[in-house]
Amino acid sequence: MKITLKTDVLTNNNKAAEFNRNLFESTNTLVINIMSSPGAGKTTLLEETVRALSGKYKIGVIEGDLATEKDANRIRAMGARATQINTYGGCHLDARMVAASLAEFDLEEIDLLFIENVGNLVCPSGYDLGEHHKVAVLSIPEGNDKISKYPQMFMRTELVLLNKIDLLPYLDFNVAEARKDLSEINPESELIPLSARTKEGLHEWFSWIEGAYAKCI
Amino acid sequence: MKITLKTDVLTNNNKAAEFNRNLFESTNTLVINIMSSPGAGKTTLLEETVRALSGKYKIGVIEGDLATEKDANRIRAMGARATQINTYGGCHLDARMVAASLAEFDLEEIDLLFIENVGNLVCPSGYDLGEHHKVAVLSIPEGNDKISKYPQMFMRTELVLLNKIDLLPYLDFNVAEARKDLSEINPESELIPLSARTKEGLHEWFSWIEGAYAKCI
Repeated sequence: MKITLKTDVLTNNNKAAEFNRNLFESTNTLVINIMSSPGAGKTTLLEETVRALSGKYKIGVIEGDLATEKDANRIRAMGARATQINTYGGCHLDARMVAASLAEFDLEEIDLLFIENVGNLVCPSGYDLGEHHKVAVLSIPEGNDKISKYPQMFMRTELVLLNKIDLLPYLDFNVAEARKDLSEINPESELIPLSARTKEGLHEWFSWIEGAYAKCI
Repeated sequence: MKITLKTDVLTNNNKAAEFNRNLFESTNTLVINIMSSPGAGKTTLLEETVRALSGKYKIGVIEGDLATEKDANRIRAMGARATQINTYGGCHLDARMVAASLAEFDLEEIDLLFIENVGNLVCPSGYDLGEHHKVAVLSIPEGNDKISKYPQMFMRTELVLLNKIDLLPYLDFNVAEARKDLSEINPESELIPLSARTKEGLHEWFSWIEGAYAKCI
């Protein structure tokens, strides 16, 4: 019974994901789903990304949160189109929520669409949203053990942005060890150390996006 | 159908929680369920708690994680009895998992039992484990917006341990604002700023535990 229901839920999700994917393809929109623990720095990273790339691309952002419009307001203040999904307790976005929010964009006019998922290192990675790429943000204060302790997330993402490297002098975090743990769980995954706050390393993330856009469109 | 199933899941959980609660009462065991985002510092806090209080109380710890035995090993190294629950992708502990793990303790011999939940600021707070107290850990690097963005967690806990205050000089976090946000969402909740790493403020947390123990037993 439990298995049947989970299958149904995922089947419905996958139908909506397919709908989204077709829409993204027909409108030439590159879509990146960004996931992390609460407070790893997804919104600050997106603010900097909008600031740096909005001269080159038309950018839209879907913000997922249990409550408040705070993150969408932060993105709007940077000049990008943003819409907020509130899950009211729900622990992840699903493809139907994303499909419903797409009505707020003219996708023909959007080159890059970022989806900032609910802050949660567990549930979001299990749901296909129809995106082209899944990216995880891991921040230095969370500690070295997170990649092995939350393997499902890091097995399913193709890029890890290791954020808040400006705090490395004050914390015991070993970047080489994180690379090693990631290569064991997901040898294909890339890892980019950066700081959204000091902007160190951001150029590598922007190059990654430009490469993904060039391949996709 | 969805509602019925959720009711069933919670009914089953509540039956197991009631079983746990009766057992804790009959064995005079004070039980504290600790919840937070990944990497907020729950395990380090428990290491320090075991170190400080194991002369006075017999302490047991149940560790919840998706994968690995790392946290239970850290607690065992401090000299406390610890058991590890691996949820294999599950985003929270439930009362049945806790009930099953209680067989590994002689509760007659345990004064304080800590349950370290899966690192997740969303799902764990919705499940009664039969515990006496729910405590949230929020860490400075996660940022000021978390209390309003994850209201279900902070409405359901009665104490917030604001961890990693040793990082306050390097980050924009306003403790007074966190107190204000918490008092709006949950006026009954206490908040203790501390650092498990530098030990600043830990005595207040230990006093809170001693007070809770005195009231419960």
